[in-house]
Amino acid sequence: MKRRSFFKRSSLAVLGGLVLPGFEAQAHVLDEANKNKRTKNIIFMVSDGMSVGTMVMSDLYLKRKYNRPSAWMGLYESGLGQRALMDMASASSVVTDSSAASSSWGGGVRVNNGSLNISPNGKENMPILQKFKKAGKKVGCITTVMINHATPAGFCTWSKSRNAMDEIAEKYAELDFDVMLGGGSKYFDPKTRKDKKDIFAVLKKKGYTVVHTRDEMLKAPTSKPLYGTFAEDALPYSIDREQDAKEKATVPTLAEMTTKAIDQLKNHPNGFVIQVEGGKVDWAAHGNDIGALLYDQVAFDDAIKVALDFAKKDGNTLVVITSDHGNANPGLIYGKQCNDNFDRLQKFTHSNDWFLQNIKVDDNPSAVREKIAAYFGGINVTDEQVKELLAYYSKAEKREDGLYNYKHLPYKLFSELQKPHTSVGWISMDHSSDYTELGMYGPGSEKLKPFMRNTDMHKFLLSVAEVEDKF
Amino acid sequence: MKRRSFFKRSSLAVLGGLVLPGFEAQAHVLDEANKNKRTKNIIFMVSDGMSVGTMVMSDLYLKRKYNRPSAWMGLYESGLGQRALMDMASASSVVTDSSAASSSWGGGVRVNNGSLNISPNGKENMPILQKFKKAGKKVGCITTVMINHATPAGFCTWSKSRNAMDEIAEKYAELDFDVMLGGGSKYFDPKTRKDKKDIFAVLKKKGYTVVHTRDEMLKAPTSKPLYGTFAEDALPYSIDREQDAKEKATVPTLAEMTTKAIDQLKNHPNGFVIQVEGGKVDWAAHGNDIGALLYDQVAFDDAIKVALDFAKKDGNTLVVITSDHGNANPGLIYGKQCNDNFDRLQKFTHSNDWFLQNIKVDDNPSAVREKIAAYFGGINVTDEQVKELLAYYSKAEKREDGLYNYKHLPYKLFSELQKPHTSVGWISMDHSSDYTELGMYGPGSEKLKPFMRNTDMHKFLLSVAEVEDKF
Repeated sequence: MKRRSFFKRSSLAVLGGLVLPGFEAQAHVLDEANKNKRTKNIIFMVSDGMSVGTMVMSDLYLKRKYNRPSAWMGLYESGLGQRALMDMASASSVVTDSSAASSSWGGGVRVNNGSLNISPNGKENMPILQKFKKAGKKVGCITTVMINHATPAGFCTWSKSRNAMDEIAEKYAELDFDVMLGGGSKYFDPKTRKDKKDIFAVLKKKGYTVVHTRDEMLKAPTSKPLYGTFAEDALPYSIDREQDAKEKATVPTLAEMTTKAIDQLKNHPNGFVIQVEGGKVDWAAHGNDIGALLYDQVAFDDAIKVALDFAKKDGNTLVVITSDHGNANPGLIYGKQCNDNFDRLQKFTHSNDWFLQNIKVDDNPSAVREKIAAYFGGINVTDEQVKELLAYYSKAEKREDGLYNYKHLPYKLFSELQKPHTSVGWISMDHSSDYTELGMYGPGSEKLKPFMRNTDMHKFLLSVAEVEDKF
Repeated sequence: MKRRSFFKRSSLAVLGGLVLPGFEAQAHVLDEANKNKRTKNIIFMVSDGMSVGTMVMSDLYLKRKYNRPSAWMGLYESGLGQRALMDMASASSVVTDSSAASSSWGGGVRVNNGSLNISPNGKENMPILQKFKKAGKKVGCITTVMINHATPAGFCTWSKSRNAMDEIAEKYAELDFDVMLGGGSKYFDPKTRKDKKDIFAVLKKKGYTVVHTRDEMLKAPTSKPLYGTFAEDALPYSIDREQDAKEKATVPTLAEMTTKAIDQLKNHPNGFVIQVEGGKVDWAAHGNDIGALLYDQVAFDDAIKVALDFAKKDGNTLVVITSDHGNANPGLIYGKQCNDNFDRLQKFTHSNDWFLQNIKVDDNPSAVREKIAAYFGGINVTDEQVKELLAYYSKAEKREDGLYNYKHLPYKLFSELQKPHTSVGWISMDHSSDYTELGMYGPGSEKLKPFMRNTDMHKFLLSVAEVEDKF
């Protein structure tokens, strides 16, 4: 083999090896980027129930529609991000649920599915935001589902069951955290709580600004801690919010909530730690609802951009981006029409959930056909298929069930009807055991190994932030 | 926030930041590992059609059965591997096929699905093993499918169509490559070639040792180039080979072929480049055949171990581990039985393909039921299900089709019957657009960014090996 002398001319020769343009040693890049920086702030971002296909399709969608990568893949393309796979198993199952997943990070211990930071032997494991708070940092959570739902709760508190939503909201009021934004007002509101306690009043008495609209949130003073709930339950899907003038005016996006949370906390001398959850990505996957899934993942990506932009300017912020488990493993399937079918998603205007909620058993079949074409990028279904769909609404039995399908809508039936027109398939309507994608940017990221056990995340975050784990 | 003085005591303080035990800077680890090494040899390993769930399930299987990680995940756990995502799209589709995928690496250009290193405009792109051969290295391919199949062919030669298998075999004989091991003897044998040419005779005349059994392969002298074909078409699935004394005696494993190929080439002063393909992982995914899939992925992992063991000893070898595209996105699905169902796969003894080939329409239903229980970890099917399965064989119409389902067996029907007993689901029987997992070990790996476009792999390999791309 001839040694090519022209390689020697490269001015990038480092680390004892020859480095060619375009293929600089990543070790060197990261060393330089994070030199003399410290992990003062942490923004921990979770796309709940995001299989790798969900992440990939959001990137492909943005590249094909706007000729730009997702913020997440853009980070990887820049060479400034580190990545790993994370094994998310719980104490009870190879396939975790969101409460056990968040508890593994939040409490550093694997608990049974359904439990929040309480070990199988009954031990309570202190949640990481309590540890950071005690260490002097400001802390908080942001989500598109209920603020007292599994993923934020795993960073905040304990409970034998994630379903004890009233109790979790009440415990939250004792935490003195600095910013909490999401849905779930019915668990704080005396009119809807079983015990009629007014948790909002408790919060106000403690000095919180309590807000319920986007404008109120934007105007909230940075001098006071902030609680915002913008819906009784979860916030609307991004794809539906975009079509609803009232929701657009009153419900903030995940990116807007993230921006506000950072503004609230960024001047604290000891730094801050926040969790940001794209919670309805998981709900959409449970519903095999491709429009809802894709656009909520894009909304999550918009929040990633907010976090990365801040972190780049700040210099002392670690951004962690991950998911808690796979869900339904969606993927774009090969076929002659797959490019066109995939691009059809650009024209979707509603979630399946929204559409199916608005069907009535006596709807005119041809009007339903037209709506399907109008809302779902021209999907042309047969009369037979519309009949089958309408028939579902007339049957008392055989109703579909499943997580977050509160109204027993025909999610599966409609998703299967869409499949030939979208080329997107699903393995099920539930979580999968896939290891999750884990990306990091900023000081501390250079310590990430390519594989992590979920419980090591707890130690990792405390360690890079130089907070002693004495609890 | 209190700065904890005990952290200062760590003796691992490097890179201007505090490094805590267990979270050493990866940059530092890789710098140290690859210092003063060069990329003399490359072992490029492809698990064909491996979705992330396939990789994850093989690791979970090994951890649950043998309490050890897969070689692939073990590499990541050690912190000595680098990883990235790779966008594998072809010129014609977001979802690639294996020939366009291998051509993107092999020729450095995206071609249409079905094509081998011929661009849409007709340009022939020189395959990377020809470039390495011209640069003085020894080169070769190893696979569990036909040696002239899409994935090896994309590193070796050109063709307008991957299906021109006779023509590709004939072109191979002109290449003077150093070691070629796999299946596909019917494309070299005058008895089965359409033109009756004897390609084996051509190879022998050129000085090759030509072998057709495991023993012949093991005994082949390292002084001569080596051609080995161990089946007319593809090699048997690993799970079936294990049960067949004759196949075990005559057909080598992928790990054995990899060991032999390394032995043939390792003393060459200018180094070597080989491609190693676990080709039947893709076939199993096309068949939604979980036993075949899992055990062929494990066999691929055994070959990874061979490559890594050699590379660790050698010091100047880059090992690249990846897949060319997702396929069927299999995943273990949540449910109360999912742990037990997953462990049931440990008792599988045959592929679905093998079992379905051996069914006859007039088989006794209860005998079929017993066989299903015996071969598939105690799966207890109903009489109704056995009837449905047998009925398939009596129908002339409604026969299943699909890639590699040459005998039109009821792959889908049987896979759906298995699903409640394995908790493994599939999105389809075809490729997906998921970006593929890309791992690297050894000198050169420190230059890998966390995201790579498939065509950049071509430049990357030449660059790290310091071979000028002048063709």
